[in-house]
Amino acid sequence: MIVVLKENVEKEKQDQLVDWLKSLGLGVHISAGQFQTVLGLIGDTSSLDMDLVESLDIVDTVKRVTETFKCGNRKFHPEDTVVSVGDVKIGGGNFCMIAGPCSVESEEQIISIARDVKAAGANVLRGGAFKPRTSPYDFQGLGHDGLEILKIARQETGLPIISEIMNVFDLPLFEDVDILQVGARNMQNFDLLKELGKTNKPILLKRGLANTLKEFLMSAEYIMAQGNENVILCERGIRTYSDYLRNTLDLSAVPMLHELSHLPVIVDPSHATGIARMVPPMAKAATACGADGLIIEVHNDPPHALCDGAQSLRPEDYAKLVTKINAIREAIK
Amino acid sequence: MIVVLKENVEKEKQDQLVDWLKSLGLGVHISAGQFQTVLGLIGDTSSLDMDLVESLDIVDTVKRVTETFKCGNRKFHPEDTVVSVGDVKIGGGNFCMIAGPCSVESEEQIISIARDVKAAGANVLRGGAFKPRTSPYDFQGLGHDGLEILKIARQETGLPIISEIMNVFDLPLFEDVDILQVGARNMQNFDLLKELGKTNKPILLKRGLANTLKEFLMSAEYIMAQGNENVILCERGIRTYSDYLRNTLDLSAVPMLHELSHLPVIVDPSHATGIARMVPPMAKAATACGADGLIIEVHNDPPHALCDGAQSLRPEDYAKLVTKINAIREAIK
Amino acid sequence: MIVVLKENVEKEKQDQLVDWLKSLGLGVHISAGQFQTVLGLIGDTSSLDMDLVESLDIVDTVKRVTETFKCGNRKFHPEDTVVSVGDVKIGGGNFCMIAGPCSVESEEQIISIARDVKAAGANVLRGGAFKPRTSPYDFQGLGHDGLEILKIARQETGLPIISEIMNVFDLPLFEDVDILQVGARNMQNFDLLKELGKTNKPILLKRGLANTLKEFLMSAEYIMAQGNENVILCERGIRTYSDYLRNTLDLSAVPMLHELSHLPVIVDPSHATGIARMVPPMAKAATACGADGLIIEVHNDPPHALCDGAQSLRPEDYAKLVTKINAIREAIK
Amino acid sequence: MIVVLKENVEKEKQDQLVDWLKSLGLGVHISAGQFQTVLGLIGDTSSLDMDLVESLDIVDTVKRVTETFKCGNRKFHPEDTVVSVGDVKIGGGNFCMIAGPCSVESEEQIISIARDVKAAGANVLRGGAFKPRTSPYDFQGLGHDGLEILKIARQETGLPIISEIMNVFDLPLFEDVDILQVGARNMQNFDLLKELGKTNKPILLKRGLANTLKEFLMSAEYIMAQGNENVILCERGIRTYSDYLRNTLDLSAVPMLHELSHLPVIVDPSHATGIARMVPPMAKAATACGADGLIIEVHNDPPHALCDGAQSLRPEDYAKLVTKINAIREAIK
Repeated sequence: MIVVLKENVEKEKQDQLVDWLKSLGLGVHISAGQFQTVLGLIGDTSSLDMDLVESLDIVDTVKRVTETFKCGNRKFHPEDTVVSVGDVKIGGGNFCMIAGPCSVESEEQIISIARDVKAAGANVLRGGAFKPRTSPYDFQGLGHDGLEILKIARQETGLPIISEIMNVFDLPLFEDVDILQVGARNMQNFDLLKELGKTNKPILLKRGLANTLKEFLMSAEYIMAQGNENVILCERGIRTYSDYLRNTLDLSAVPMLHELSHLPVIVDPSHATGIARMVPPMAKAATACGADGLIIEVHNDPPHALCDGAQSLRPEDYAKLVTKINAIREAIK
Repeated sequence: MIVVLKENVEKEKQDQLVDWLKSLGLGVHISAGQFQTVLGLIGDTSSLDMDLVESLDIVDTVKRVTETFKCGNRKFHPEDTVVSVGDVKIGGGNFCMIAGPCSVESEEQIISIARDVKAAGANVLRGGAFKPRTSPYDFQGLGHDGLEILKIARQETGLPIISEIMNVFDLPLFEDVDILQVGARNMQNFDLLKELGKTNKPILLKRGLANTLKEFLMSAEYIMAQGNENVILCERGIRTYSDYLRNTLDLSAVPMLHELSHLPVIVDPSHATGIARMVPPMAKAATACGADGLIIEVHNDPPHALCDGAQSLRPEDYAKLVTKINAIREAIK
Repeated sequence: MIVVLKENVEKEKQDQLVDWLKSLGLGVHISAGQFQTVLGLIGDTSSLDMDLVESLDIVDTVKRVTETFKCGNRKFHPEDTVVSVGDVKIGGGNFCMIAGPCSVESEEQIISIARDVKAAGANVLRGGAFKPRTSPYDFQGLGHDGLEILKIARQETGLPIISEIMNVFDLPLFEDVDILQVGARNMQNFDLLKELGKTNKPILLKRGLANTLKEFLMSAEYIMAQGNENVILCERGIRTYSDYLRNTLDLSAVPMLHELSHLPVIVDPSHATGIARMVPPMAKAATACGADGLIIEVHNDPPHALCDGAQSLRPEDYAKLVTKINAIREAIK
Repeated sequence: MIVVLKENVEKEKQDQLVDWLKSLGLGVHISAGQFQTVLGLIGDTSSLDMDLVESLDIVDTVKRVTETFKCGNRKFHPEDTVVSVGDVKIGGGNFCMIAGPCSVESEEQIISIARDVKAAGANVLRGGAFKPRTSPYDFQGLGHDGLEILKIARQETGLPIISEIMNVFDLPLFEDVDILQVGARNMQNFDLLKELGKTNKPILLKRGLANTLKEFLMSAEYIMAQGNENVILCERGIRTYSDYLRNTLDLSAVPMLHELSHLPVIVDPSHATGIARMVPPMAKAATACGADGLIIEVHNDPPHALCDGAQSLRPEDYAKLVTKINAIREAIK
């Protein structure tokens, strides 16, 4: 960490600060410039409160020079992480196509959609059983029954399944689910992240509604610091002042996350836009900028979907999209 | 709900839509304008997916005319709610001064601060035992021990206590805590909100980092819909592109929340600004625009605070601030 | 426009409102619902102050059902506009590759870059002569001389040229420039837009830093309402709380603008990201989601560029990128 | 400026960078830390492209340690600036109450309002003659005639007048206007700012819709660097994802701007909220956090105002507000 002092600081105050920093076990390298003195702190500064140091009278600015995230940092782990789910691999050049309805509604529905998306080229089946809804009066998902139905669809099609977990309590119910999803609203539910870090399940971690990339990577760090390195990052749109679209899909996060971290990065164009006809162009764009996969909502009867029908593709449209996605993947090789 | 159709819609398609809406149990009042036809939906539209209807080919726009939140809505409950904690009343003209350290660190620390803030005019003592931190490597609070120490400080001073709960699991530990705080990051942790709704504890609900007022009120609704009406709303700064301050304190939320809801609204200028010397001006501003109280971080030794020292006032500065706050309250009467 | 009244409004107050609306020359269609009455306004409501109506005591909400932009609206002009600049066509399936340095620095520099980008596949040359800089102490461009040098480069290569105009005063200097660019900071400089609307020059209008799509289209409307329909829209990144990138490139604006308007839409990945190595992935993504062209900064010696060197591609990297862009265009056909 | 190199940089590359920096006329102080080397640049770094240096392979981060704004910086000018307009003083403890209609509509209107607001306690009269409107189809102001009418109102009441200038061309028309206002949309219209810097008129500079405080101060710098130091800063609400209010009034900007700069800071609660009944609470809050004045829209007949009627106070409500404002000023002394 580098601490830049204000101009013309009294020698005595500077010495007090240096002494205090040394009392915290840090080495201090003093570099007196023409106008300003810079202190270089040596040692483990990760627990030092940057804001506090910056608030001191004699301090101008503080700059952390070592990254605060470690497990997910590409600097310390240059090779791409590849997350495996049965035969499916995600990351490191392996593209993952997750598809399915927002909510599991019935056995017929989910099996029908599962067969359709598999035929179209999907390799993982999504389906929500526990649904986080802004309003307590909206449909909250089938819960345990939804998970059971999802497993039947897996048996019928061979597709591994992914579903959202909202609560540490529900962990036993998810024992036989292949990938556990953490939703945007829970990205900083740290107790949930810690518990998921104690499992060896692949975790799909969605970026929070208004979180920075650093916060996103710190949340991944909560999982990884507990020993579970199977984390998949998912960009799903951020909150801005957008007028015609629900959120703003931040696709530049994809190459930037790839630069910062070795974890796979996938994109959810369905939640990002909230409008089915915007999903294909944004899915193509995500592929073109290097995403490791896509998670897309597909429903056989959008007007009667119990949730998020407006953003669901019909199976036939999904199939057409997959063809284009494959062509783009070929084009950018 | 009002559904505005596009111009020159085919009669057949319009009829299909009307039939479908009726099949959902809704009455449909058709009003043909000069250019556009408007459908007025009568009945319970709360479970109708607005986005889906809006996405239909023949629909131009959709407008919900009834509020989606009920328990917290001033329309249905015009009088101010007053939340009582022992002798302390919050809302309805009763001003609440919550103060204390970010984290409980030791018995000496918390008792000393508790005495100081009580003398200065505070009527509730705050102190974090479980801390949500962006980094897994930062100090996470004293946990259960922190709560026990906080209770000792209550015994010493008579001040009721407030502390943050992060997890449903921890609910038994909070049985003897007077007010339970839900942090900004957990504002949409719906399972936690539902469980808190089953208690009769006063809940201080902080607005999420980038949540709208409607989402904020819907989260209060999660608690109230379970039967617990003792909810205190807290504005604590929202995320913007601010360059010199951590967050942007949205004080216009105070009068707007008062208009929309009967719940008390307090303000946290410490987290909003992150800088101790910005706390007094923003605390005064919050008071002047009608807040029902303030929650302020006070620490006897900010440079050695284990968390958020940069934003903590010293007890003597807090005392000066309280004097000004009282003068402003008098001025706006 | 639709005006939804509050519940149980007094008949007298409702009549007053209806009378006032009629006095403004509007027809009023009254539709009494089960709980609420809805007024449908017929006639030209474009000059009625929506906010004012909404602020009235007896009004719940107001909804405009006709679009406020007309000239640029796809509803009234379904075919794509194609802007022509010499032999170059932009929009309607014609892809436009604009490239060149941020600033014109010297004759040698611009001719060298112009030849390189032409060889790589660019069909328009960019170069700033008047530069809007956040600081008055930064390099402000070569001005008139810069434009003259740019014209020499056009003569040498045959590429049409584009440069930014900041002021109505400078219009005569731009008489012989092929495309006039309006920068993000001037998107709502309405006097400038009006004057540009009186020319017949193609105008490249950049989206403002934090403007909505509606505001963007209204600014295009300022130009078009004066008679100049040669407007090219340009998405260049919007302001958010992004931590590792200068702006957030809002690519979902591309398909949405295409849906709302018939004007061509191009993308500037250089200013959006501010980092040269992020330009290729975002340029590819822009192409994949249907942009009508790209404007990219290319410099032969980025470390010595007088402005924005950090975001400039070298000519050889630009050439590689063009190959990929062409492959993606083929893939999405 | 401080340049932090990456770990284990090759000696040769480091020497190249140092040589290049020296070739730009800078002194370079090399400080080798345990892990990372830090270069301290000495001399005038104001024209060095920070982003470019940061983008170099061997550079980790760059930190500017000297402020980029000079004329407006409190560090170099610790005393408050007081702007004088006739007998009225703004800043340095002098509170300024600007009031009047959004637009000048007629002589009767403006004189009537001018008398009312003067009686209530206002000391400057506002009135728009040239109006920046998002839509080209909205009322654009009375222009030159509006200014003439405004001057009559000045003569009648003795109140100095303020009106918005949108264009360098219009400068001669404003010769006899007391304070020139630059609107939010023109905050970065640098050519306009430069010309205003060549006058000796007091300039009220509104913060742009989504501009940072640093950008705001840099725009003030454009005016001051030309010799005109009579700049008044005005916070008027910033763009966020607010759902019930037009903008988010950023009141924490008031104390922060006071800390960074010696210029007076006033607040516009009318445009910030867009709703008349939200103006009094926010005006009180602005006063309580130390604003040097308020600019408030007052109209004698809001429902018939040609623009922004929804946010205009009636004269009698303004008078009541002034009483409260004075009481708060007394309370915070």
